[in-house]
Amino acid sequence: MSDLAADAAQDQVAASLDAADPLAPLRELFVLDDGTVYLDGNSLGALPARVPKRLAEVVSREWGQLGIRSWTESGWWEMPQRVGELIAPLVGAGPGQVVVGDSTSVNVLKAVVGAVRIARERAAGRPSGRDELLLDEATFPTDGYIAESAARLTGCALRPVAAARVPEAVGPRTAAVLLNHVDYRTGTLNDLPALTAAVREAGAVGVWDLCHSAGALPVGLDAHGVDLAVGCTYKFLNGGPGSPAFLYVRSALQERFDSPLPGWASHADPFAMDPAYAPAAGAARGRVGTPDILSMAALEEALTVWDGVRIEDVRAKSLALTDFFLRCVAAYTGAGAEVAVRSLTPAEHARRGSQVALLCDPAERAEGVMAELIGRGVVGDFRRPGVLRFGFTPLYTAFQDVERAARVLGEVIGGPR
Amino acid sequence: MSDLAADAAQDQVAASLDAADPLAPLRELFVLDDGTVYLDGNSLGALPARVPKRLAEVVSREWGQLGIRSWTESGWWEMPQRVGELIAPLVGAGPGQVVVGDSTSVNVLKAVVGAVRIARERAAGRPSGRDELLLDEATFPTDGYIAESAARLTGCALRPVAAARVPEAVGPRTAAVLLNHVDYRTGTLNDLPALTAAVREAGAVGVWDLCHSAGALPVGLDAHGVDLAVGCTYKFLNGGPGSPAFLYVRSALQERFDSPLPGWASHADPFAMDPAYAPAAGAARGRVGTPDILSMAALEEALTVWDGVRIEDVRAKSLALTDFFLRCVAAYTGAGAEVAVRSLTPAEHARRGSQVALLCDPAERAEGVMAELIGRGVVGDFRRPGVLRFGFTPLYTAFQDVERAARVLGEVIGGPR
Repeated sequence: MSDLAADAAQDQVAASLDAADPLAPLRELFVLDDGTVYLDGNSLGALPARVPKRLAEVVSREWGQLGIRSWTESGWWEMPQRVGELIAPLVGAGPGQVVVGDSTSVNVLKAVVGAVRIARERAAGRPSGRDELLLDEATFPTDGYIAESAARLTGCALRPVAAARVPEAVGPRTAAVLLNHVDYRTGTLNDLPALTAAVREAGAVGVWDLCHSAGALPVGLDAHGVDLAVGCTYKFLNGGPGSPAFLYVRSALQERFDSPLPGWASHADPFAMDPAYAPAAGAARGRVGTPDILSMAALEEALTVWDGVRIEDVRAKSLALTDFFLRCVAAYTGAGAEVAVRSLTPAEHARRGSQVALLCDPAERAEGVMAELIGRGVVGDFRRPGVLRFGFTPLYTAFQDVERAARVLGEVIGGPR
Repeated sequence: MSDLAADAAQDQVAASLDAADPLAPLRELFVLDDGTVYLDGNSLGALPARVPKRLAEVVSREWGQLGIRSWTESGWWEMPQRVGELIAPLVGAGPGQVVVGDSTSVNVLKAVVGAVRIARERAAGRPSGRDELLLDEATFPTDGYIAESAARLTGCALRPVAAARVPEAVGPRTAAVLLNHVDYRTGTLNDLPALTAAVREAGAVGVWDLCHSAGALPVGLDAHGVDLAVGCTYKFLNGGPGSPAFLYVRSALQERFDSPLPGWASHADPFAMDPAYAPAAGAARGRVGTPDILSMAALEEALTVWDGVRIEDVRAKSLALTDFFLRCVAAYTGAGAEVAVRSLTPAEHARRGSQVALLCDPAERAEGVMAELIGRGVVGDFRRPGVLRFGFTPLYTAFQDVERAARVLGEVIGGPR
C-alpha cells in the first residue's frame, strides 16, 4: 500500500469510528474551535457550553442581587458537599464521602497527615511505630513536596519507591502510602486494586491521587476499599482553570479523620462561632475555609455534561482513541523522520490511562516540535525532557481529531514520506 | 425638639454629609439595589459593576478559546503575584510581599507554622526553647482552630490571651503570636503598631489577620514592621463569595519563610517538574497549588474600583459613617423600646474598625430583629449571642443609608416614640 493510500485508509477508519461512537453527540456540549484539535484535556479540560450562562447568573443574581443571603438562599454553604456528590459516582464512591474545595496540593496535605494519624491510632499500644511514609517515586512533583512536608510535620521518614514495588516496600513501620493513579508524564495506569490491598494488608493507610484518572476511567474507590483519595477537577472533569479539587475519605474512616486544616467550615456547628473546635461528621470534615463559590459554581455546571454518561463507556472510548492514535503515529512517522518518537505509554490496556506520551529523539527537539504542532492547530503539551503529551478526553475528542493530530505530527517531524 | 423634628434633623444631616462626601461618586461603580441598605460588606462586599463582563471574557475567550495557552498568553500563571500587588498598597505593603491564593484558613496555617519556624531558627543555640504560641482570645474561630493545629504540628503550647495583654504575656518562650486586627464580633480595632513592637521586642514573630481591616482602614504593614499577615478579599475588598485570600511576608523574612504547604506553584522552577523542592524567591514562596483563575480574575477586576482612592480617605469616611450611625441609633432607640441595644464597638476612633456591633437585651430577640430588618431592606447580620452587626463600606455606603438603617431599627425594636 502506498503512503497516500495508507493516509486515506486512516482517514476512512477515523470516519467510521466516529460514525459508530455512541458518545459523539456529547461534543456539542462543549465550546470547541473546529480548526483546532485540543488534546490537552489532561491539563485543562475544554469549556462546557453551559458554564458561561450559569456563572453570569451566579455573579449577577446570586452575588449582585441577593448578596449575603445567597449563602442560604442560593445554597452556597452546602456547595462543597453537593458538588462532591456529583463527582462521587464518577470515581465509584457512594454518597457522603467526597467534598470539594482547595487545591489538590492542599488536599494532599489533609489526606497524608490524616492517613498517618489514622495509622498511628490503629497502631497505638503496639510495638511498631509507624514512622514511615511511602511515596510513588514517579509522582507529580507537588505530591512529593507536600508529602515531604507532611512527613516532617508528623515525624515520619519519607521513602520514594516505584509504585509497582509498594507490595514489597510496605511494612509494619509504614504509616501511609501516597500513590498516583495515572502517571502524569507517561500515562501509565497503576494497579489500584492490588496496591490498595497490599497497603491495607500491611496495616498502613493509602492515599490515591486521581488527578489523571477522575473522569477518564472507572476508579472504583468503594469497590476496592480505598482509604483516602484526592483529585483535581480541571482536567477530565472540565471544571475550569484552577477549579477546586476534591477529597474522598472512606465512610468507615471519617470518624477518625483528623485534618491538619480544621477550618471553621469543617466545624460541626460553624455559625455557633465556638472557640472550641468540634469536627463535623461526614465529608464536611474535609472542608477548611469559606468555599470559593464562583469557581465551584462553574464546576457544578460543568459536571452536568455527565448526565446519563457511564464512565465505563468513557473508558472504552478512551482506549479506542489511544489505540488509534498509536496506530496512526506508527503509520505517519518512522523511517526517514528527523525526529524519532517512541511511546512511553504502556501498550497494555490495563496499564494505560487516557493519554499518550511520546519521547522524542533527540530530546531537545521536543519543545520545538510541540510549538510547531500548536502552531498548526494540534494542542498537546511538552514536559521536560523530551516528552510530547497528548491527552484524550472521550467526551469531546473525535477519532478524526486523533488522525489529524498524528498526521500533523508526521508532517512536523518528517514522516516516512 | 419633638421626635419628628429629630428625625427630620438626622435626615437633613445625612443629605448634607452625602453632598460633601468626596467618595460618593464611587457608589456608581457597584451594583446596588436602591431599595436595600446593604450593611453587610464586612461579610460579603457588594458586586463591582465591571466584574460580570470581565469574568465572561475570562471564561469565554481565555478558557473557551485559548484554553491551556492562557496560562502564558492571558497571564494566568502570574496572577497570584499580580493581584497581590494590587492589594499591597491598600495594606501599606511595598512590592513583592503579597501573594493571593487559597482561603484565609489555609493562609493562617502557612503563616503561623512559618512564623514558628522563623522564631526557632533565630533562637537556635540559645537556651530559650520558643515552644509557645499566643493567640488572640477573641479571635475569629477559624484562626483559633488552625492555630491549635499549627501548635500541634510544631510542638508548641497554645495560649489564648486578650490582645491588649500581649505585651505582658509575650516572652522568651514565645515563638509566634496570632492576632486579629479588628475583632469580627465587636468591631474593636487592636493597636497593631504597639502590639507588633511588643512581639518583636520579645524576639517572637507576629502574624496579623487583616480580614476585617484590609480595605477599610490604613494598616501600614511595612511602616509598623509587621512580620506576616493574612486577610480575606471578599469583605471590604469586594472580591466575591469565597474569593482567594492573601498572604504577606515581610521582605526581610522571605528567605527564611518555610511554608508547611510547599506546593508546586511555590517552586523556583515549577515547570521543571523537579522531584526535589526548591522554594521560589519572594512572594511566590507563599503559593501552593494551581491558582484558581476564575475567582482570582473576579477579584482582580473588583480591585479596579480602588484606582485613585486613598485608604486614608476611606478611613475618614468610615469613621464618619460609624459616628453617624451611633448618633442615629441613639436618636431612634432608647426609652420605651421593647429591645434595648448597646454598642459593643468602642467609641474612640483609635479603637474602632468599620463596623458597629449592637448587643440586644434581651439577647434572644436579636436573631428575630435582624430577620425583620432584612425583611424591611436593611441588611446586616446576626452573631450569637445577641449581636447585630452592621458593616460600613465607605466606597458604596451613603450617610442616607445609615440614617435609614438606624430609623428602621428604631421602628423594629420600638424606639422612643
